[in-house]
Amino acid sequence: MGIDPGTLITGYGIIDFKKNKFNPVCYGAVRNKSSDLISSRYLNIFNKLNKCIAKYSPDVVALEGQFVSKNVVSAFKLGQAKGIAVLCAAKNGIPAYEYQPKDIKQSVSGRGTAGKEQVAVMIRIILGLADVPKPQDASDALAAAICHCNNISNRVNIVKRI
Amino acid sequence: MGIDPGTLITGYGIIDFKKNKFNPVCYGAVRNKSSDLISSRYLNIFNKLNKCIAKYSPDVVALEGQFVSKNVVSAFKLGQAKGIAVLCAAKNGIPAYEYQPKDIKQSVSGRGTAGKEQVAVMIRIILGLADVPKPQDASDALAAAICHCNNISNRVNIVKRI
Repeated sequence: MGIDPGTLITGYGIIDFKKNKFNPVCYGAVRNKSSDLISSRYLNIFNKLNKCIAKYSPDVVALEGQFVSKNVVSAFKLGQAKGIAVLCAAKNGIPAYEYQPKDIKQSVSGRGTAGKEQVAVMIRIILGLADVPKPQDASDALAAAICHCNNISNRVNIVKRI
Repeated sequence: MGIDPGTLITGYGIIDFKKNKFNPVCYGAVRNKSSDLISSRYLNIFNKLNKCIAKYSPDVVALEGQFVSKNVVSAFKLGQAKGIAVLCAAKNGIPAYEYQPKDIKQSVSGRGTAGKEQVAVMIRIILGLADVPKPQDASDALAAAICHCNNISNRVNIVKRI
């Protein structure tokens, strides 16, 4: 299960990885309104992710490691949402791993500097989807999940358990 | 209940505020080791704060608003721990409020630029404690709680519900 945490939109995506083949299980996003209290948003993210984890029992959770953020305030907000996602994994006894954005891009598209749209197209192809997964946050979550599968199968040592 | 979140030490403090009088109920800290996985730390903070909330049923949770942080990485880490604290409040149906550091200092010591030790001494006096509360994180948590009580009783409009 990949998670792309955010206070307004938290993307998630679950994939099945067997014999080096990828199959999409489900993907989507937990949405909050900007008028919602921060505390309500976190509770909503926590409840929805827990529900999804209870339904599909993923083996691992993969997240993007360091968010690219220009200022302290937005890093702080993103950090809070990520804390909720990591807690959901821990609360359900699921190991969590994080990957750097460039490693996810590299793993999915072959290029560490690939654009978001390029990555989305590659995810569509890898998972055999009719369309590019929407929203972008769900696509980014699926990318983290694919990156983790590629890494454990190739035993590349860029896995960081958190 | 005041909470001062941190990934290594999360301070908490519960006070009873009736007829403009303060009484300490309990204070302490949730400690994690730097060798613990981040996910284990969050789960520990979540479990311990929930246990404390279940035991004392506080009416509100008060936190320091914007952490003073020089870089994006430390803001990100602090944000994650704060997310857990805010979630604990929300999960237990308790409203959470945040205050700026200078407002907490002003409220407790009368000076927005007071040092940490000055604030700690004032907390000892306000709560009628024999010693300055330790660790510093518990003292900071108590300061946030006192600040909230002062604000609601004085109806000063610097309360921000989150």
